[in-house]
Amino acid sequence: MRAKPNATPDDLAFGINACALALSSGHAKAVLWLRDTRNDRVLQLVDIAIDAGIPTEAVDEARLDQLTGEGVHQGILVRLANLEAVDLRRAAAGEGPSLVLLLDSITDPQNVGAILRTAVAVGTAAVVLPRRRGALLTPGVHRASAGLSFLAPVSAPQNLNQAIATLKEAGFWVVAAATGEGSIPATEFDWPRKTALVLGSEGEGVAHLLLRESDFRVALPMDPRVESLNVGVACGALSYLWRRQWPAR
Amino acid sequence: MRAKPNATPDDLAFGINACALALSSGHAKAVLWLRDTRNDRVLQLVDIAIDAGIPTEAVDEARLDQLTGEGVHQGILVRLANLEAVDLRRAAAGEGPSLVLLLDSITDPQNVGAILRTAVAVGTAAVVLPRRRGALLTPGVHRASAGLSFLAPVSAPQNLNQAIATLKEAGFWVVAAATGEGSIPATEFDWPRKTALVLGSEGEGVAHLLLRESDFRVALPMDPRVESLNVGVACGALSYLWRRQWPAR
Repeated sequence: MRAKPNATPDDLAFGINACALALSSGHAKAVLWLRDTRNDRVLQLVDIAIDAGIPTEAVDEARLDQLTGEGVHQGILVRLANLEAVDLRRAAAGEGPSLVLLLDSITDPQNVGAILRTAVAVGTAAVVLPRRRGALLTPGVHRASAGLSFLAPVSAPQNLNQAIATLKEAGFWVVAAATGEGSIPATEFDWPRKTALVLGSEGEGVAHLLLRESDFRVALPMDPRVESLNVGVACGALSYLWRRQWPAR
Repeated sequence: MRAKPNATPDDLAFGINACALALSSGHAKAVLWLRDTRNDRVLQLVDIAIDAGIPTEAVDEARLDQLTGEGVHQGILVRLANLEAVDLRRAAAGEGPSLVLLLDSITDPQNVGAILRTAVAVGTAAVVLPRRRGALLTPGVHRASAGLSFLAPVSAPQNLNQAIATLKEAGFWVVAAATGEGSIPATEFDWPRKTALVLGSEGEGVAHLLLRESDFRVALPMDPRVESLNVGVACGALSYLWRRQWPAR
């Protein structure tokens, strides 16, 4: 059994888009919905769940507020099942151009969610989240990803240095998104066919230990008045610069 | 006198980063700070304001909460001055490669903020916001942009069709971020030297009227399971694909 990427005791998603994707991707094991909702999309999703034989329960607003921690649930919540982690070694073994994202100390759910959405869009082979305390794929992440976190190839949480070793063995070049000595403008960079892109948090950047293991540093060229881009935006720009050089199929 | 891009009756920014940039860019006319703050950066900013002869006032938490609408103010708030709009005709007249962003019905402050931050980073000549009711550059936008909204070349709000006419006259090609008939993958697109990039909201896309005025449609290639990217992320990816082809200097 591989570990689940999601370590919350109770795995939830909420909001219409996130719940719709949880249902359509087979990750819903129960649906709770607002008894007096007037939202047609909520009612449609309840019908879909009933047709699929998934238990549904009508509840009041207070219960949804409580379960979602006052989140913007839009009248629907899903209990999740079968969020299986991707095996990094297997994901890295594929033929053809391949991009793997490694997220170093990126914790903001908005950012993690945006990155997972981009990861699915651009077709990354894996997203590696570091091992740490607390939930990784939280309801906030599911929501911020518009539910694409269910489809994203998230690997089991692991030590990023070990992940880098695994990827190097599989023929990947390690590219850290970082300024500083030897940093190459991302727009001029000759992207490796198999790229492991390490992204750090906006404040801290990529950890020194990981920089040492990197084959290249690249940075988006920027007006000097800008300290950094939002990491979700930077991930999008870097991923598509890679994709430009290595089109799908 | 050119109109201010910001139409709020009381122009505010709050949060440490936004206030720091308001001060350093000369856009602060008064600073309100939390009397019993223990945050050194807040105290530093107050010192900077005092040294610059800008009025400061120590207030209690309730006052900051009220002024910011319960926003995450981190103990500091700035009243803004001199947010002058960029003249689109003049901004478009420059020699050399040039990118102008036109935001069609993008209203979420997180997205507008992220786009303005990217706009400064990538070096766009202008960002055109449509004329509409309500505030455009709200405190939420300043915060989401990490304060870079003060530095972004935002034009006076105007009819986007008129803005497009102005830009075409100045030699710009109009590129709509849109899927559908004739849409070219953004990663294969031969970006015009002078590009006016029209971005729509995630739900609605670019309005038909604007699509008709566009010379090209481009779209980031995406896994078909993804309906759309976050518009701030898409803006980052598209802007840097343009910048790759037309490096600064």
